[in-house]
Amino acid sequence: MSEYVPGLEKVVAVETEISFLDVVNEKIVVRGYDLIDLAKKKIYMDIIPLLLTGQLPNTEERVKLEQEITKQSALPDSLIQIVKQLPKTIHPMDALRTGISALAGYDDSLDDQSTEKNIHRAFILLGQIPMLISLIHHRNIIELPSDLTYAGRFLYAMVGSRPTPLAERIFDQTLILYSEHELPNSTFSARVIASTLTDLYGALTGAVASLKGPLHGGANEAVMQMLQAVQNKEELKELIIAKLMRRERVMGFGHRVYMRKADPRAVLLKQSLAELSKEKKRKDLYDLCIYGEQIMKQEKNLYPNLDYYAAPIFHLLGLPTPLFTPIFFASRTAGLCAHVIEQQQKNRLFRPRVRYIGSTLID
Amino acid sequence: MSEYVPGLEKVVAVETEISFLDVVNEKIVVRGYDLIDLAKKKIYMDIIPLLLTGQLPNTEERVKLEQEITKQSALPDSLIQIVKQLPKTIHPMDALRTGISALAGYDDSLDDQSTEKNIHRAFILLGQIPMLISLIHHRNIIELPSDLTYAGRFLYAMVGSRPTPLAERIFDQTLILYSEHELPNSTFSARVIASTLTDLYGALTGAVASLKGPLHGGANEAVMQMLQAVQNKEELKELIIAKLMRRERVMGFGHRVYMRKADPRAVLLKQSLAELSKEKKRKDLYDLCIYGEQIMKQEKNLYPNLDYYAAPIFHLLGLPTPLFTPIFFASRTAGLCAHVIEQQQKNRLFRPRVRYIGSTLID
Repeated sequence: MSEYVPGLEKVVAVETEISFLDVVNEKIVVRGYDLIDLAKKKIYMDIIPLLLTGQLPNTEERVKLEQEITKQSALPDSLIQIVKQLPKTIHPMDALRTGISALAGYDDSLDDQSTEKNIHRAFILLGQIPMLISLIHHRNIIELPSDLTYAGRFLYAMVGSRPTPLAERIFDQTLILYSEHELPNSTFSARVIASTLTDLYGALTGAVASLKGPLHGGANEAVMQMLQAVQNKEELKELIIAKLMRRERVMGFGHRVYMRKADPRAVLLKQSLAELSKEKKRKDLYDLCIYGEQIMKQEKNLYPNLDYYAAPIFHLLGLPTPLFTPIFFASRTAGLCAHVIEQQQKNRLFRPRVRYIGSTLID
Repeated sequence: MSEYVPGLEKVVAVETEISFLDVVNEKIVVRGYDLIDLAKKKIYMDIIPLLLTGQLPNTEERVKLEQEITKQSALPDSLIQIVKQLPKTIHPMDALRTGISALAGYDDSLDDQSTEKNIHRAFILLGQIPMLISLIHHRNIIELPSDLTYAGRFLYAMVGSRPTPLAERIFDQTLILYSEHELPNSTFSARVIASTLTDLYGALTGAVASLKGPLHGGANEAVMQMLQAVQNKEELKELIIAKLMRRERVMGFGHRVYMRKADPRAVLLKQSLAELSKEKKRKDLYDLCIYGEQIMKQEKNLYPNLDYYAAPIFHLLGLPTPLFTPIFFASRTAGLCAHVIEQQQKNRLFRPRVRYIGSTLID
C-alpha cells in the first residue's frame, strides 16, 4: 500500500477530459479552452453544452438548448409543497440538498443511466435548480417574463425584478467563472459517489453537502460578512490584522492548488466589479475591496480568489448573502454533471484503504 | 504529482482508529475487537458506543443509552408530512436520502459541530433512521410496544408485528455485522464530504447516495432477486452458469479488499440462517443458498460475502427486498457517524488532483 497523504494532496485521483488547473501557465483549461477567454467571449448557455458534450454550440443550437431548458424548468407541484413545508429556519443549502434529492422521485426513467439520458437530465436540472433556489428563498414561485435569457431568468427569480443589461451580463459571467474548476472537494465527492453507479441526483446531493462546508463553498458568504462588518477602510484593516493575529483564515484569499499570482477569475471579476459599482453608485464598496486586497498582499503576500470579488458583485446585484453558495452550486451543476457522466463512462469504484492506528486486537 | 490509480485502489486515503480489514489475519478489527466476536457476544446497542466513543458500555450505560435513543426517535410532524408527500413510486433509498437531508432543518444547534454534540446527534439519528425507513415503507407511523429492544423495535417497525426472540437476536447480529467495515465507498464519501467541515446530515446524505449504487449497497437486494427468480437448485445452477457465460457479476460473492477465504461475516450468518430457516420451516431456502455457494466455489473459486447470507435472513425475517439496502444503511449509520466525527477531529480537506487527458489550449 501507498504512503498516507492527508487530504490526498497532490494525489492524482481522476483522469479527465473536462478541465485542468494549469498552474505552470496560470490558466484554467476547460475542454481545451481558457476559462477566462470563455468568460469574456461566451455566455453561460455556451458553457453548458461545452462542459457536457465537449463542444461549443452554434447560435442555432444554443437558442434551441435555451428554449428546452426554460421549457422544462418548472418544478413538480408536490415538490413545491414539500419545499414550502421545510422549517422556515432551514439553511438554504440544506433545503437545496433536500430538494435535489427529492427530484429523483419524479424521474420516470431513473434506471436509464446512459450518457445521453444523463446529459438530458443535466439540462433539466440546470433549468430546475435556479427555480428551486428561488422557491427556497421566497417560499413561493416567482412568475418570470418569457423574454429573458438563462442568466436573466435566474437573476430575476432571485431578486424578483428585471435586471439591467449590465447586471445580467455580469451575472452570466460569474456563472461561467463558477461553472467548473477541476477537482475541488464537491466535484471529487460527486465522482466518488457516482462511481457506485448511483444516480445523478444522488451524486449532486453529495456535492451540495460538500459545497455547504465552511472550508469549501461558504467562502463567498464569509467575504460578504467581512465586508459588511466594517464601516470603512480603517475598520477593514483592523479586522483583517486582528484575524491574522489570531491565526484565523481570511476568507477569499489563496487556494491550495493555485497559481503563484492571482486567481485569473478574480482579476476578471475585479474589472466587472468596477463597472457594476459605477452603475450602482457604490464606488465605496469597490474601493473597500481594493484596499482589502492590498492589505492581504502586504501582510501575507496572498492574492484574492474568485470568491473575494464574486461576493461584492452578488451583493450589488441585489442577491441576499445566504443565496451566494446555492448560486455557486447552481452554476457548478454544469461541471458536476459533466464529471458524473465522465466517471460513469469509464468507471472504477473508488475504494481506497486506511492506515489503522487504533488498538490492536483485544481478547 | 503521483501516478494515477483508478478508484484509488490500495491507496491509503485515511488514518483511522475505528476499523481495519486485516487481510493477513483474516479479521475485521473494530476499535481493537474482532467484529465476529462482537457479533457473537454483544448486541448492537453495545456496538453503537463502541464505534462512537471507542468504549464498550457497561450494562447500566447500555440501558441508559437505549432509553435515550428510544425516547428521541420520534420524527418531527412536518417531516412526516413531507415524507408522505413524496411520490409513491420513489426508490426507498432516494426517500431516505431526502429525509435525512431534511432532518438538518430541525436541528436547533446545527452550527455546533463539537465531537460531543455530534455523538449526541448520532444517537438521535440512530433512533430516527429506522423510524424514517418504516415511515417511507408504510407511509404511516407504526405504533410500537414500549418493551422492545433496539433491534426488536427496528424489526417491529419494518414488519408491523412482534418478532420471535430468535428473529430479534439474528436481526441484531446482522445489524452488528453491517455496522462498520473500514473504508467502503459510502464511508469514504462521508469522510470526503465531512472534510469540508459540513454538517453530519450532509455527510450521511452523501453516504446514502453512495450506498444506493448497484456496485455498493444494492448487492443484498440483487442476491434476493436471484434466489427468488428460481424454483429449485437446478434452475439456480443454470442461472449462475448463464450469468458467468455472459461475464456478468454474480452478486454476493467476492470483495475487492478481501480475505483469501470466506468473508467471516458470511460464515457466521450462514449458521444463523440454518437456525432461522429451521424456525421458519424454510430448509428449502437454506439448501438453495448452500448449493449456490458450492457452485460459485467450483466455477469461480469465489466465496460468499456478507450480502449473500444477509439477503435470505432478511427475507425470512419478513423484510421486503426494497428495504434491504435502507436497513444496511441504518446499521452502518453508527460506523459512518464515527468516521465523520474522526475526520473532523483531525481534519485535512480532501482535494486531490487530476490527470488531464483532454484537448490542449484552443485559441
